[in-house]
Amino acid sequence: MAEKIELPVDRYFDPDPKQKEIAQHLYQQVASKPLVCPHGHVDPKMFADPDYQFGTPADLLLIPDHYIFRMLYSQGIELERLGIQRLNGEPVESDHRKVWQIFAENFYLFRGTPTGMWLTHELYDVFGVDEKLSGDNAQKIYDQISVSLTQPEFRPRRLFERFNIEVLATTDAANDPLVHHRAIRESGWKGRVVPTFRPDGIVNIDRPDWGENIRALGEVCGYEINSYRRLIEALENRRAYFKAMGATATDHAALTPFTCELSNEEAETIFQYALKGTAAGDDARRFTGHLLIENARMSIGDGLVMQLHPGSHRNHNQLIYERFGTDKGCDIPIPVEYTRNLMPLLRKYGNDSRLTLILFTIDETTYSRELAPLAGHYPALKLGPPWWFNDSLNGMRRYRDEVMETAGLYNTVGFNDDTRAFPSIPARHDLARRVDANWIAGLVVRGIVDLEDAEEMIDDTAYGLAKRAYKFE
Amino acid sequence: MAEKIELPVDRYFDPDPKQKEIAQHLYQQVASKPLVCPHGHVDPKMFADPDYQFGTPADLLLIPDHYIFRMLYSQGIELERLGIQRLNGEPVESDHRKVWQIFAENFYLFRGTPTGMWLTHELYDVFGVDEKLSGDNAQKIYDQISVSLTQPEFRPRRLFERFNIEVLATTDAANDPLVHHRAIRESGWKGRVVPTFRPDGIVNIDRPDWGENIRALGEVCGYEINSYRRLIEALENRRAYFKAMGATATDHAALTPFTCELSNEEAETIFQYALKGTAAGDDARRFTGHLLIENARMSIGDGLVMQLHPGSHRNHNQLIYERFGTDKGCDIPIPVEYTRNLMPLLRKYGNDSRLTLILFTIDETTYSRELAPLAGHYPALKLGPPWWFNDSLNGMRRYRDEVMETAGLYNTVGFNDDTRAFPSIPARHDLARRVDANWIAGLVVRGIVDLEDAEEMIDDTAYGLAKRAYKFE
Amino acid sequence: MAEKIELPVDRYFDPDPKQKEIAQHLYQQVASKPLVCPHGHVDPKMFADPDYQFGTPADLLLIPDHYIFRMLYSQGIELERLGIQRLNGEPVESDHRKVWQIFAENFYLFRGTPTGMWLTHELYDVFGVDEKLSGDNAQKIYDQISVSLTQPEFRPRRLFERFNIEVLATTDAANDPLVHHRAIRESGWKGRVVPTFRPDGIVNIDRPDWGENIRALGEVCGYEINSYRRLIEALENRRAYFKAMGATATDHAALTPFTCELSNEEAETIFQYALKGTAAGDDARRFTGHLLIENARMSIGDGLVMQLHPGSHRNHNQLIYERFGTDKGCDIPIPVEYTRNLMPLLRKYGNDSRLTLILFTIDETTYSRELAPLAGHYPALKLGPPWWFNDSLNGMRRYRDEVMETAGLYNTVGFNDDTRAFPSIPARHDLARRVDANWIAGLVVRGIVDLEDAEEMIDDTAYGLAKRAYKFE
Repeated sequence: MAEKIELPVDRYFDPDPKQKEIAQHLYQQVASKPLVCPHGHVDPKMFADPDYQFGTPADLLLIPDHYIFRMLYSQGIELERLGIQRLNGEPVESDHRKVWQIFAENFYLFRGTPTGMWLTHELYDVFGVDEKLSGDNAQKIYDQISVSLTQPEFRPRRLFERFNIEVLATTDAANDPLVHHRAIRESGWKGRVVPTFRPDGIVNIDRPDWGENIRALGEVCGYEINSYRRLIEALENRRAYFKAMGATATDHAALTPFTCELSNEEAETIFQYALKGTAAGDDARRFTGHLLIENARMSIGDGLVMQLHPGSHRNHNQLIYERFGTDKGCDIPIPVEYTRNLMPLLRKYGNDSRLTLILFTIDETTYSRELAPLAGHYPALKLGPPWWFNDSLNGMRRYRDEVMETAGLYNTVGFNDDTRAFPSIPARHDLARRVDANWIAGLVVRGIVDLEDAEEMIDDTAYGLAKRAYKFE
Repeated sequence: MAEKIELPVDRYFDPDPKQKEIAQHLYQQVASKPLVCPHGHVDPKMFADPDYQFGTPADLLLIPDHYIFRMLYSQGIELERLGIQRLNGEPVESDHRKVWQIFAENFYLFRGTPTGMWLTHELYDVFGVDEKLSGDNAQKIYDQISVSLTQPEFRPRRLFERFNIEVLATTDAANDPLVHHRAIRESGWKGRVVPTFRPDGIVNIDRPDWGENIRALGEVCGYEINSYRRLIEALENRRAYFKAMGATATDHAALTPFTCELSNEEAETIFQYALKGTAAGDDARRFTGHLLIENARMSIGDGLVMQLHPGSHRNHNQLIYERFGTDKGCDIPIPVEYTRNLMPLLRKYGNDSRLTLILFTIDETTYSRELAPLAGHYPALKLGPPWWFNDSLNGMRRYRDEVMETAGLYNTVGFNDDTRAFPSIPARHDLARRVDANWIAGLVVRGIVDLEDAEEMIDDTAYGLAKRAYKFE
Repeated sequence: MAEKIELPVDRYFDPDPKQKEIAQHLYQQVASKPLVCPHGHVDPKMFADPDYQFGTPADLLLIPDHYIFRMLYSQGIELERLGIQRLNGEPVESDHRKVWQIFAENFYLFRGTPTGMWLTHELYDVFGVDEKLSGDNAQKIYDQISVSLTQPEFRPRRLFERFNIEVLATTDAANDPLVHHRAIRESGWKGRVVPTFRPDGIVNIDRPDWGENIRALGEVCGYEINSYRRLIEALENRRAYFKAMGATATDHAALTPFTCELSNEEAETIFQYALKGTAAGDDARRFTGHLLIENARMSIGDGLVMQLHPGSHRNHNQLIYERFGTDKGCDIPIPVEYTRNLMPLLRKYGNDSRLTLILFTIDETTYSRELAPLAGHYPALKLGPPWWFNDSLNGMRRYRDEVMETAGLYNTVGFNDDTRAFPSIPARHDLARRVDANWIAGLVVRGIVDLEDAEEMIDDTAYGLAKRAYKFE
């Protein structure tokens, strides 16, 4: 029989007893604060329907989580065996007990990874699993989770309340009619779930689905988007609609943070090329770069906080992309340059305190070289927390190490969980709060800040910074 | 009433008791050694005039220090409100009590930053301020500093002696007549203040002020600089003059460390284009790259140590530059490549032990990849300490971590404070000595070096390396 | 008289007593496990001849080790004074006592470097030297080592057995007839020494010695390599021969990891240009990039593990290269990009679990940005240990820190010593095992893995991963 596990109360803290004691003190101060979740990818549908059910343990924990199945795939386990649907509808493993068994047998692969830490916490704290998952106990634990999932207290709204979530932002395409968000608001349920305006499908004219997105945008706006002027109008209208539905922010992904300003004539010309499918050369890059500047302008007008996430080479693995689609764990980072790429946008709007532009990176070399110096100067700039592959214990430590001395804590925006995996949210915030408590305790034991300052700092990292930066007051 | 603070005697040391004990031992060994300041930007005027006064606390501590006001600006506080002069002479805040109040109210922004650590030390140690600066005690502390500044013991020469500075190098344009340095030497005062030869304004033909600089160089040399040959002659003359005034080093800033050798004919052609204002394309980059090689040649001749500081994109924020001028906290680093860029210079002079070329970087990715391997091979190369944004507790730790194993301690040159803020000099050296003591103690507790070696190493990092590398024997 | 030294039993462990205790426990578990050496540059000749002698202490320890003499050279000590042979046969220092004296007087340069740690261990453990090497005791220690080297137990085969080496792979050119490997196999000696297939001289058509290598390849194959088809045939034949001689792997160096697929016609055309000496422009890069893909294809066929080591700018110092030849400590890293460069190879073979492609880097910026995300996804990819300048205590720590959370331990391949310096092998493995034990202990004290997992992990890092990845079962 497997040994019972417990989550160590001092987990993730450095071993020095004095630092650990202070870290524990700081952590306790914020451990039960509400969770502010300003950026993520949870499906709002689960809150629109009060009776929404999560399906099997594999449906809930494994199949939607590319962090997990990419690791299994890297060891030669086909995605079909993990129940990931193929685009062409060919059969994949449908026995979720078998899928779960494979996962459990390979759970050792996650040793030392954030996914392993989150899962261990989540299984223990949300589902009461007090054994280390393995091939031996896989089916027993499957049963245990399955039983939980039938209970009313495992409906998403109930978990939302149990998790003490103060606000949860989803991410939604510019042409999304936000029917689930509307349903949530109309349902009378008090949970605060808000959309985020993401216009990537509209501003990137080189996407295969761009034409389709433009048509869909026209439909949701009620007029055809047949000119650049109409496009700008449509973006402004949709931003207003998102804001009316509770949004406080926009989100922009781009291959690079290249920005450049076009004249209206140039922008119109490229847009017409794009409609005809004849855009070429640098057109797409320049158009996207221009629309980043335009969105900054709109943000100054409507107050929506602007987020920028560059640097991911999407769908690097063609075979997986063609067989299974996007978001299957095969997006790979590339080197990114911010200093020169952002200069046109910053020269135009970087000095305007009404703009909040939050920058993210998966190229850590930019932390101390570019991002911290930029954020420590421009009033409009703030830095987002460590993103994606760097949303981890060591990744957070490196971020604090390389960013804080130059940017200062108050040019950063606290934590976000950026997750599709709803029940992992408390685990993710808990890890971040512990790592931050440990970091601040490290400053205290080195005589860099005193305990009074430390107590204010942990409140801000755990709660205040995110709430203020994303205007959730 | 605010609580009294003290500077913790074990500040900046790691918390492990054994490491801390050794760090304390090593630090004590060098805590009162004289300060060697081979690179910085203190104004020599303050030592030329024995009665020089610093002005108000804001004049002394805030207005000249872009590390400080960039952080305040990043939070939306206009530079005008901080008393920073506008180029067009329009009025800015002239009540320095108000400026100081804003600074004090926002002093929490500097938590965990080197600026915060230096200021806390400086206020405590130089001015006897034993409270944490805040909005509440701002005016009281302003009074306290103001009173100090009227005292004779707060004249720059007296502080120079109190700080136990053995030598202080300033940085001076190639065409600077060095009147203050001459006055210092002629005054009979024993403080060693020496110039550093910085020909950037002369060798970068694409600077807006280049023509003016060339004319000024001609004036100070007594002949018109109308040919490349004359330029070389003028540089050699000025180097000789600087050397006669005590200089032991030159300093070179460049956007990149690109070097390339031109024939005399090519150099002359580009120089004539520059005089006519028709230099174009790659001319400026090649000319600068060539003059870096020429300066290395001159260094072999006259023995002046050569320093190279590439990688800063100057005046990134056009609005601030146009309104307030240079050095206003809006220089932002860019990625830098050394391996190939320096090859022409190193092939020509890198094997010559008579040359000392000290490299600096603000792109930390080059530490382990390029700079340490280069310095661990070429006799002419040494590495400067962590520069600018990286002159910080964590920045120094990363530098030691990434450089020392490959370059070895003896291919580095100790610490320099690189500051305009004269009264912060002891705080900066103290932080560096503590961080180095802690680093070496970390080697001792890991059994990597023994205590005998450690004691030699701390002497070298705190004093010997800088003194020998910059030839201050 | 110099003080006696001992190697601290807890060396290289972090100072926290709890972490140190666990690290010690984990280290003890693997301290005496056999050494698996899957990648290195030891000369197989020393095992072919049972009576092979190492020569003088300088012959053994200094002259073949560019890690050592590059550091001495960086401080202005000419290579001639260290007994390094000049290509033109001009005399160099031949009195090895004098060479040794210089080395000993400058041994302090190696403080805190891996070379210093390895040498200290090696002198103590292999030769019984229990004093810190210095100018004073240089000749006494020279005598002590010289005496040892005359003893039968210091023949290479005896040391191989004493070191408990389970398998040692050498690195051998594609056209090498492997006479020493054959002699070893035919000698009846049980030591497992195997070749590694390295076709760099053949696939890089821009090397000065390419024509010569192609002729040599033709000779060893028994037919002229006059077409691309013949080249492919020859490579396949040689791989088969290497495999028959015990090889389990191939090794590929390249300036960049650029890959691209050529048609047979394009490949043939470039090959014919190369034979005529008229290859130009991008030909060499594309041909090499194509042959990397071809070698991946061959690996799927014959099962040889493929290693790729990009990013070293060879022979950066022209003077040293022309005077002393290759591998003289003047290879300098350059920035490397993997995400896009490897895409053609990975799209073709990255999903094939029959391929094992082990990637190395000396550009650490790629750890968290590119290599860990790639290895955490593609079934064919694994990551090699920290390479060259990063094969060090801090380098290993950074690797674990930046790689493990995303790639997971099981997409890495354990340690290799990559050395020419045969008697340093135990010291290198010992350091790696200690650093790994300390890393895993750090996970335990932070509650990230439990002791049961930790014990499995240290077995894998010290032994199992290398053995399995390189198919030494």
